[in-house]
Amino acid sequence: TLDALLNPLHAADIADLLEQIDQRDRATLLFLWRDGIDGEILSELGDDLRSEVIDLLGPAELADAVRDLESDDVVDLVEDLGVDQQEQVLDALDAGNRVAVERALAYPDESAGRLMQTEVVRAPSHWTVGETIDFLRASDDLPEQFYHVILVDPRMKPVGYVTLGRLLGTPRAIHLTELMEDSFRTFRVDQDEEDIAYAFNQYHLISAPVVDEDDRLVGVITIDDAMIVLDDEHEEDILRLAGVDGESSLTDKVIATTRRRFPWLAVNLVTAIFASLVISMFEETISTLVALAVLMPIVASMGGNAGTQSLTVAVRSIATKDLTGANVWRVIRREVLVGLVNGVIFAVTMGIVGWVWFGAPMLGLVIAIAMVINMVVAGLAGTAIPVVLEKIGVDPALASGAFVTTVTDVVGFFAFLGLAAVMLL
Amino acid sequence: TLDALLNPLHAADIADLLEQIDQRDRATLLFLWRDGIDGEILSELGDDLRSEVIDLLGPAELADAVRDLESDDVVDLVEDLGVDQQEQVLDALDAGNRVAVERALAYPDESAGRLMQTEVVRAPSHWTVGETIDFLRASDDLPEQFYHVILVDPRMKPVGYVTLGRLLGTPRAIHLTELMEDSFRTFRVDQDEEDIAYAFNQYHLISAPVVDEDDRLVGVITIDDAMIVLDDEHEEDILRLAGVDGESSLTDKVIATTRRRFPWLAVNLVTAIFASLVISMFEETISTLVALAVLMPIVASMGGNAGTQSLTVAVRSIATKDLTGANVWRVIRREVLVGLVNGVIFAVTMGIVGWVWFGAPMLGLVIAIAMVINMVVAGLAGTAIPVVLEKIGVDPALASGAFVTTVTDVVGFFAFLGLAAVMLL
Ligand SMILES: [Mg+2]
Ligand SMILES: [Mg+2]
Ligand SMILES: [Mg+2]
Ligand SMILES: [Mg+2]
Ligand SMILES: [Mg+2]
Ligand SMILES: [Mg+2]
Ligand SMILES: [Mg+2]
Ligand SMILES: [Mg+2]
Ligand SMILES: [Mg+2]
Ligand SMILES: [Mg+2]
Ligand SMILES: [Mg+2]
Ligand SMILES: [Mg+2]
Ligand SMILES: [Mg+2]
Repeated sequence: TLDALLNPLHAADIADLLEQIDQRDRATLLFLWRDGIDGEILSELGDDLRSEVIDLLGPAELADAVRDLESDDVVDLVEDLGVDQQEQVLDALDAGNRVAVERALAYPDESAGRLMQTEVVRAPSHWTVGETIDFLRASDDLPEQFYHVILVDPRMKPVGYVTLGRLLGTPRAIHLTELMEDSFRTFRVDQDEEDIAYAFNQYHLISAPVVDEDDRLVGVITIDDAMIVLDDEHEEDILRLAGVDGESSLTDKVIATTRRRFPWLAVNLVTAIFASLVISMFEETISTLVALAVLMPIVASMGGNAGTQSLTVAVRSIATKDLTGANVWRVIRREVLVGLVNGVIFAVTMGIVGWVWFGAPMLGLVIAIAMVINMVVAGLAGTAIPVVLEKIGVDPALASGAFVTTVTDVVGFFAFLGLAAVMLL
Repeated sequence: TLDALLNPLHAADIADLLEQIDQRDRATLLFLWRDGIDGEILSELGDDLRSEVIDLLGPAELADAVRDLESDDVVDLVEDLGVDQQEQVLDALDAGNRVAVERALAYPDESAGRLMQTEVVRAPSHWTVGETIDFLRASDDLPEQFYHVILVDPRMKPVGYVTLGRLLGTPRAIHLTELMEDSFRTFRVDQDEEDIAYAFNQYHLISAPVVDEDDRLVGVITIDDAMIVLDDEHEEDILRLAGVDGESSLTDKVIATTRRRFPWLAVNLVTAIFASLVISMFEETISTLVALAVLMPIVASMGGNAGTQSLTVAVRSIATKDLTGANVWRVIRREVLVGLVNGVIFAVTMGIVGWVWFGAPMLGLVIAIAMVINMVVAGLAGTAIPVVLEKIGVDPALASGAFVTTVTDVVGFFAFLGLAAVMLL
């Protein structure tokens, strides 16, 4: 039966399975296995499918499904639902949990307040190990996941934390303050989740307290959730670099996908027409020497590729905060020199190819010079453009590609055809 | 003084600082602050700088620096060093730690064996909570980081694990077997770290035991290290998609960087020449109608961009295991349809532009038809090529770009110029 097949699977794998089968199979499976859908599976589904599945569940089933989730998982589950479905899920929660979720939803999208769980384990900073263990044993609803006991002062400000490992390995009489970890750092509830994912990775954090404007403890973020953000931010960067914007999924329909791909292609059409205008300035030159039309895409293409290499390195280094004001000039200098060296190597190669192919040494020289120029410009533009975009607050992953390839197309065509007009005719 | 300035910083930030200042400043700083360099900072440095710094330290200082690191951090620190420096570091370790590190180095690069720490906390599966806590209190060298107590059978096979939180929240008399977690899964010591990072992210693991061929517990992998692998694999993918292969860093010198950028540019030169050969087949056509030379890059460029969109979505979906045999045909179908719809929209636009610009309706028709053909091919090639590469064991991130853009260049030029030759002349 279905139960025998699906129950051993992890919720994440069931969600993947639902996303990978086709719509008809999915409808059948959901119809036959409605009561197998739990909160974990709902959490793992992409936004589109999640709405679809929630519509299939009755209020009682939905209530069953979401009741056992931690507050952060409920927030993640409802934040992108429509208002009606959001209401349905909130109604299914018990009062305390509902308040926590509604408070989290009041924080900005992609903030620490959305990412944190409000289930925290805290202890007054004057407690001993023994007092803390007794308190934990007496609690009847410890969070499913916690890795530190957070020490708070009387005004609920977190002052440090103790790992559970230290707590377990230390005699009962020792004070918690003697066991506090160096790695302790807190986040503000309105901080961007991208900064938080960066900090978890940079400082190898496992969990970190979240505080409100008054520095009072309001929640805790755990590394598993930070890892998901890191992965999402990466997906965003890699897709944006390729001109695919917005959360996309393989289950998206043709129309939704077409819409998502359209804007970048439209931008590219405009820039391509712009490059064509440069070519059209040299129509006469080309009609005198058609070999120019044959060779000109090579110059543009090599510049475009070299520029893409530089810009991707720059975009990634900006994301990892490795490219900063302190080294930007050094990196630009390096990229320009790399463009120059590779430019010279490929210029010589291509010069010889052009000469042999068309039997015209001067044509070889023209393409060689144009190649060097374009690859140096590629290194410069490939680094400078993302840095400037970042400075003015535009995501360099999103916009750099269009600018850099426009520059390398225009410079490539102009240098090659312009030099040809001057040197060959 | 330097101490006052640098000591409050996290080791990761000090390493970043060392990487961002220029070589002369770095030499000065290291000279003045040699005794500030500890094992943590060495761990955080990139490979090149790490060698540089190790050369500056005397044997005693090096020994001091590496002595306190966990085994996995020592492995990560030495695995990419030269033989001499590796020997130096190993000599600085005490005997037990040295054996653990040497054993780890015997496992393949990027395997679980390299990633795991050998410091594990285990308990016989028949123990109670009380026995376990007493054992932990009596241990004098618990690992710095651990999140589960791993239950083993008498032959050292892991059979489950208990979170420290459960252990702390449960009365002493309860048996560990009653507290075991669902999420439990083990990795083989020779498994690829990429699979492990995937599993940590997919199943929200915090730590997982590693077993040898005989299923015996040999180590444990923690999520902080898996997160670093996930981030490294991301970096590899994003750079490879742009034609930058190999670990690269902003501190690389011009020559090293040039070498790293060269292979992809060489591949691109060959494919660009190939596209030029296609153009040269139509030299006569172009010399009759130079407008073709002006417009032809637009067709190729739109195809290249559409193909890059499709291939990036495919490469990312393969990495996240969302694109599988179950949905590959559906995804190809979708990408082709998206190419068709966007192709038609841009064909109409470009057809009108071509018509108005050159006053030739038939020229507009030719570019429109060529555009539709190339964008459909882009959707097909952009999805099929990475899927096939993955099937034959080539990293689709590394090679797809060259193939896809070759296809869209060749098809773009051939369709546009070929149709022009047939329809216009
Ligand atoms: Mg998945
Ligand atoms: Mg979110
Ligand atoms: Mg969400
Ligand atoms: Mg974001
Ligand atoms: Mg969570
Ligand atoms: Mg971003
Ligand atoms: Mg860093
Ligand atoms: Mg580490
Ligand atoms: Mg490694
Ligand atoms: Mg390493
Ligand atoms: Mg790998
Ligand atoms: Mg570790
Ligand atoms: Mg990979």
